Amino acid sequence: MSRLYRLLPTARRLRIANDVFQEAPFARSSAIRIAGPTCQHIRWQHAQAEATTSAAGADHAPQEQPDRLQKQIKYTSESYPNIQRDSRFKELNSDDVKFFKDLLGSESAVIDGVNQDALSDLEGFNADWMKKYRGKAKLVLKPDSTEQVSKILKYCNDNLLAVNPQGGNTGLVGGSVPVFDEIILNLSRMNKIRSFDDVSGVFVADAGVILEAADNHLAEHSHIFPLDLGAKGSCQIGGNVATNAGGLRLLRYGSMHGNILGIEAVLPDGTVVDDLSKLRKNNTGYDLKQLFIGGEGTIGIITAISILCPRRSQAVNVAYFGLESYEKVQEAFKEAKHQLGEILSAFELMDHRSQALYNKATGARLPLEAEHPFYCLIETSGSNTDHDSEKLNSFLEHVMGEEIVSDGVVAENETQAQNLWQCREGISEASQHFGGVYKYDLSIPLPELYSLVDACRDRMNEAGLLSADDESKPVLDVLGYGHMGDSNLHLNVSVRRYNKEVEKALEPWVYEWVSKRSGSISAEHGLGLAKKEFIGYSRSETMVRLMKQIKQLYDPNGIMNPYKYI
Amino acid sequence: MSRLYRLLPTARRLRIANDVFQEAPFARSSAIRIAGPTCQHIRWQHAQAEATTSAAGADHAPQEQPDRLQKQIKYTSESYPNIQRDSRFKELNSDDVKFFKDLLGSESAVIDGVNQDALSDLEGFNADWMKKYRGKAKLVLKPDSTEQVSKILKYCNDNLLAVNPQGGNTGLVGGSVPVFDEIILNLSRMNKIRSFDDVSGVFVADAGVILEAADNHLAEHSHIFPLDLGAKGSCQIGGNVATNAGGLRLLRYGSMHGNILGIEAVLPDGTVVDDLSKLRKNNTGYDLKQLFIGGEGTIGIITAISILCPRRSQAVNVAYFGLESYEKVQEAFKEAKHQLGEILSAFELMDHRSQALYNKATGARLPLEAEHPFYCLIETSGSNTDHDSEKLNSFLEHVMGEEIVSDGVVAENETQAQNLWQCREGISEASQHFGGVYKYDLSIPLPELYSLVDACRDRMNEAGLLSADDESKPVLDVLGYGHMGDSNLHLNVSVRRYNKEVEKALEPWVYEWVSKRSGSISAEHGLGLAKKEFIGYSRSETMVRLMKQIKQLYDPNGIMNPYKYI
Repeated sequence: MSRLYRLLPTARRLRIANDVFQEAPFARSSAIRIAGPTCQHIRWQHAQAEATTSAAGADHAPQEQPDRLQKQIKYTSESYPNIQRDSRFKELNSDDVKFFKDLLGSESAVIDGVNQDALSDLEGFNADWMKKYRGKAKLVLKPDSTEQVSKILKYCNDNLLAVNPQGGNTGLVGGSVPVFDEIILNLSRMNKIRSFDDVSGVFVADAGVILEAADNHLAEHSHIFPLDLGAKGSCQIGGNVATNAGGLRLLRYGSMHGNILGIEAVLPDGTVVDDLSKLRKNNTGYDLKQLFIGGEGTIGIITAISILCPRRSQAVNVAYFGLESYEKVQEAFKEAKHQLGEILSAFELMDHRSQALYNKATGARLPLEAEHPFYCLIETSGSNTDHDSEKLNSFLEHVMGEEIVSDGVVAENETQAQNLWQCREGISEASQHFGGVYKYDLSIPLPELYSLVDACRDRMNEAGLLSADDESKPVLDVLGYGHMGDSNLHLNVSVRRYNKEVEKALEPWVYEWVSKRSGSISAEHGLGLAKKEFIGYSRSETMVRLMKQIKQLYDPNGIMNPYKYI
Repeated sequence: MSRLYRLLPTARRLRIANDVFQEAPFARSSAIRIAGPTCQHIRWQHAQAEATTSAAGADHAPQEQPDRLQKQIKYTSESYPNIQRDSRFKELNSDDVKFFKDLLGSESAVIDGVNQDALSDLEGFNADWMKKYRGKAKLVLKPDSTEQVSKILKYCNDNLLAVNPQGGNTGLVGGSVPVFDEIILNLSRMNKIRSFDDVSGVFVADAGVILEAADNHLAEHSHIFPLDLGAKGSCQIGGNVATNAGGLRLLRYGSMHGNILGIEAVLPDGTVVDDLSKLRKNNTGYDLKQLFIGGEGTIGIITAISILCPRRSQAVNVAYFGLESYEKVQEAFKEAKHQLGEILSAFELMDHRSQALYNKATGARLPLEAEHPFYCLIETSGSNTDHDSEKLNSFLEHVMGEEIVSDGVVAENETQAQNLWQCREGISEASQHFGGVYKYDLSIPLPELYSLVDACRDRMNEAGLLSADDESKPVLDVLGYGHMGDSNLHLNVSVRRYNKEVEKALEPWVYEWVSKRSGSISAEHGLGLAKKEFIGYSRSETMVRLMKQIKQLYDPNGIMNPYKYI
């Protein structure tokens, strides 16, 4: 793909993003699109993922810094002392390992910490990339076919061996690593693209295909994978589906629930759910595949997906502007939907504190000289460069003429576009630059979306915990940003140091606030281990009970990804 | 809404649709967008629906021609002698009716054929609008709140009374009328629009709101309901969701599975599934609402929905063209997706036989003078009239320059656009004009989509059943058309008279042919009673077994819409 960033005629008071941007300290890469982690973490993750990927053929597990990891990361069982190993689950023995080795054939498909000291090999699979969760698995299995996955799960189910499905291990809620000694079933060797039809746009591939590899394949055929996120170089499409990943293209292309046409999955008892339809329309019975989308591997393992992929856009434009109030932000969003309509592909919100902190942490100059209470980033993607530019320009002239937007810049080339994006994507890192950060990924109905940030700041102030200057106060700032187009707010409480008082003031207050507005306590990151306890803030008792019924139906022994989700 | 049809500059060999179109005998109306029925039927249906709708407040059931109906329509129990009434189900008595009357309060909310002779009132609810199915219900209940629905279902479940949920009763597969004496639970009184937020585009309404009423409400706010179909004046949005309706906007706006954000539903035991989220992102547990989308009322009754609605397009263009082969049709579709990209809102296919029959049946002149093996209709909808016209024009110049398309016309006003659409929408009626028609609604992977029509024609020829002239042969013609953009083929076998030999030659051959190509035997119409027996051609035994598990889980007594679906 070649993305074209076109020069737009300058609108009234509208300036073209200039070279000062290029002073920004980090170049934008797909890796830093993800919320939360530091660059360092991401780099480690990428190294790990590459090791895992290269291991797909025949090699061993990643050996990236295992000693450092071992020392650094607390076992999950220690961080969560209330969670006990389920005594129903059998402990692995040599006979089990022999069964798996015979089944998988290749030595490289089994990392055996039962019979041999493979601890360093295992660590990369036991620990999550944020270094927050660490399991004690003694066995990693890397099947290379759906049949093997089926035989593994049937054996585990018959023998009450717990299983932790693992894709690219890029999750943010501890869902992809074991809590205790669950067997890790890693999908990385199931990495074949099965088919792509460029008339219908239907792409079929194994679950272990890396998202970026899928997208690159589609790019050769002028199509695009309808999901984009920071971890694309490491995450696997099966994991994306299992976690119902949202990401950057949701506003434009919609969710997995609409785009996934078919799924092949394996149930705990070894049943292969053969629902890998390539059809856009198929009204013949319950749409069971939907339960696996966002099911986080708790009722079965997705082994392949079929997905509808749109044509790749030939034109991409990016603009950044300042606004005087959250009301104006909402007006701008309405106008963008109205005037940019079918080409609007991103509408991102950043408050001025997030931009000031980004500036302070990185030294990067901001796109606009004057300060504004709010900033937005708009991206358009369409099939005609001139038309898109005209639409964007006319939109900007309108919103500036009507004083909805106070000031703005438009990127005139890809570097400038990347730098504008960096003002949005660099916030996550900046917010923990001065010590640490408490982060919340929330869905809140748009009219009240930003009120939480003000309410949270007030709360920190009232508790005497916040000061911009007084180093004795733990909280440095409270900021909000996120995917405005998806009603998805990232609330960050930037701290000088982690502090129990701050935690007490935040939780469960944040969850209660969100719950009162019928919001979601996990917009796109899922439940995993981190949010399991809080589901009641977003779902009624009835819904949780009905979900537990589903879990019980498909996984009566509870062997799939235990201790997590619901 | 005002739809603007703009004049496009004439492309090479491209002509503007002219007035000859206006000779077409029927004006296009939303009512004749649906496949299958004759105008007469639709008119009856509309009359019935209007009666039902007007009954929403306080009145009685439709009394439209009940005597004629009674005489005309065979009882389903006679057409399907193999289906026996399930003896587990209790028969209604006066005590039951008293319970419901006390519960619903209003006399008009209960049509009681148990204690009184309400047969004529009941007929409109017992018969489907195609006059193919007719039940023997003695009781119609019209609750006006979710709480009432809950109490009704709990009572029915406790007392083993079978229930037939009913929305607008516009289905094509006999799903919305009883087979025996199931209680009809009609949603027409639950017709309140609950909210619309024009920033997020989220619309929340009771299940019984008529689709057109929902769309009209949205039009006032410059938004559109992301579903459009012929029965929009009668069908209810709850029924649309319960049947996962496809319709005319699917190519552009995607399916219900992607657009529905929340559902409120009642399970047979009275449990209210309170999942009426307004959030675009909410990754907190299994997405159970998806089971109700396309569940055809077999596991519960949808009482309200929350749906994401896009902005209404300001510009609509329609073009019609002739092509020399199905390969060229596929090329044209690829090019349309490429060049029209984000504004393509329909790509419809018609073979020359379908157009010839339309011409023969109606006397309407066709848009193109010369005959072509295939015709396509393209619609664009976008936010900028000039841009859309330019894109469409440039697309047409390209496909004609490359000789992908042989000839074409573009509508220059709304009447012309309607007449072009009529060439597509009039086929269904035309195909039964000379006697009758065997109709199949199929999904087939695009590369093979049209092969079925040729194969079917060959089969009819080989069996000596087809002749254009010889009146002694039952089959007049075999034709194909449909929603190319959704891989959805309508195969019509137009006959002089219904004939057992033709039926034997068609079934199960058509289903086997589709099954071999991993197609769907019901693309958008659902299973209902008509397709129940054939699910095995589109779903594996495993999938059917898993679906039955779900049915058993939610409706262990099997009271919900029995004898149908799976």
